[in-house]
Amino acid sequence: MIGGGTGVFTVLSALKRYPYELAAIVTMADDGGSTGVLREEFGILPPGDIRRALVALSSSDNKTLSELFNFRFGTNSSLRGHSLGNLLLTALEKITGSLKDALKEAVKILNVKGEVIPVTLSKTKLHAELENGIIIEGESNIDIPKHDPRLKIKKVYLDPQVPANPDATRAILEADFVILGPGDLYTSIIPNLLVRGIVRALRKTSAKIIYITNIMTKYGETNGFRARDFVRVTEKYLGRGVIDYCVVNIEKMTGVVLERYKRENVDYVEYDRKNFNSDFKTITGKFLRKGQFLRHDRRKLGLVLTETIGN
Amino acid sequence: MIGGGTGVFTVLSALKRYPYELAAIVTMADDGGSTGVLREEFGILPPGDIRRALVALSSSDNKTLSELFNFRFGTNSSLRGHSLGNLLLTALEKITGSLKDALKEAVKILNVKGEVIPVTLSKTKLHAELENGIIIEGESNIDIPKHDPRLKIKKVYLDPQVPANPDATRAILEADFVILGPGDLYTSIIPNLLVRGIVRALRKTSAKIIYITNIMTKYGETNGFRARDFVRVTEKYLGRGVIDYCVVNIEKMTGVVLERYKRENVDYVEYDRKNFNSDFKTITGKFLRKGQFLRHDRRKLGLVLTETIGN
Repeated sequence: MIGGGTGVFTVLSALKRYPYELAAIVTMADDGGSTGVLREEFGILPPGDIRRALVALSSSDNKTLSELFNFRFGTNSSLRGHSLGNLLLTALEKITGSLKDALKEAVKILNVKGEVIPVTLSKTKLHAELENGIIIEGESNIDIPKHDPRLKIKKVYLDPQVPANPDATRAILEADFVILGPGDLYTSIIPNLLVRGIVRALRKTSAKIIYITNIMTKYGETNGFRARDFVRVTEKYLGRGVIDYCVVNIEKMTGVVLERYKRENVDYVEYDRKNFNSDFKTITGKFLRKGQFLRHDRRKLGLVLTETIGN
Repeated sequence: MIGGGTGVFTVLSALKRYPYELAAIVTMADDGGSTGVLREEFGILPPGDIRRALVALSSSDNKTLSELFNFRFGTNSSLRGHSLGNLLLTALEKITGSLKDALKEAVKILNVKGEVIPVTLSKTKLHAELENGIIIEGESNIDIPKHDPRLKIKKVYLDPQVPANPDATRAILEADFVILGPGDLYTSIIPNLLVRGIVRALRKTSAKIIYITNIMTKYGETNGFRARDFVRVTEKYLGRGVIDYCVVNIEKMTGVVLERYKRENVDYVEYDRKNFNSDFKTITGKFLRKGQFLRHDRRKLGLVLTETIGN
């Protein structure tokens, strides 16, 4: 799978109970929160999404070890909201001298089944150009918009341009299926496609490409987007005719949780069926998880993915 | 063994290659550096000595895991010189709700062979009364003296008084041998003896008690102390006739390393043979390690201890 943010954890946990060989390619554009501070101070590559993928794929029978990786120190403490996993990956990168070797060690400690692959091993920064021409620098500034969030994003790009991690292109070329998303469109999904060599690999691979659209829009990034908008924007970077399957949620729940989302200018991603007459196959279903966050339910997502992938 | 500071690591590493069942009872009075900050901010028990003992007893074949536990973030970073192991123990104590359960998890992660036992599970603070009557509060203020370091320490005490961890008294009562030291006399060794129930257990146990005197004096704590002074002060807290063996270093090296120590008002602990006609057996030997620090050599110490203990 290719992604970033919480979607990584959802998809990997959804699939890990099935007998697949999993590889997670994760974005390296993250520069907010704990990850941002550690990047700046220790000159490391961003650990956040790697941590999520490692924990999702951990088959350690020690449940506390996964909890430990995700443990966050209080934001008001001198440890400023760092997650222990991020600190651990930072220390490992400093000890071993490279993110690649740090990952090897983390994989051993957590007894990870599968591969976790940073999309690039080079440092770069995400930029967004808004419809009014203003340029926003840095993933975290786009993610939690400091600009007028009603403005549309015209395009995103990496500066400097960076080459793909060869392990990432290899994994794409060798895969039977590649899952793209769910995740924040401009800050978690597309940043992977901007890395030199990734789109080429996705076009070249004989793997079937499954795109999972988001459950909710995101204020300042995908305001008012309907399902086809997600695909349309992704295809702008990926090229048309590359996606084979598109998974769209059609379940909606109302109530206090939705009200909270609406107050933050977030709403369900509408399934605009009429726009889905396309060259890919559309799979709709009820994927909503019950809880405090309107996200994909792992079990439901796992079921539909395995039906698509087969055994 | 009972101790604190770097001596814990030395003795445990010295003995772990032999087929003994090891238990390390470590002081809980530490409140300096990374440990001090974490105690204050997170209300945990001090992790420093526990970390050293865990790493020493780790039989994990993953060398990086031990390195990771001892990894320190730069003192100028926002992580202010914290060691990752301390952060990990802090997180574990927060996740599991107690130091006891945190230790159980850490023991699993590091595949520890042996026991690591906090001398008490209650919070307390070390105090020192100087010869001029002034009271110094806090282990770190005694350890790195803010007072006139030429003044002698009259006595140390814990406030509040705290009961021993029952695991500590059990380990002492069940042991065949108990090793006391080496370590900073007033800040690493005696703080263990101040915990209610420890001295009683040491007097009651049928175990032979081996006392290891330090290689070097410590400015502000044991200025000008000779070997017998260490034993004398320890016996003030422990009672006379409790120590069975006393291990004293008689090796000295001169050179730049010693010069550096001397500039910091530290010198070799002299073996004052004439004062050693006592009720315990004295074992002298050459225990010095070659290196940047004048400390016990693990291998040499291991050899003399196993000769004493037998197999």
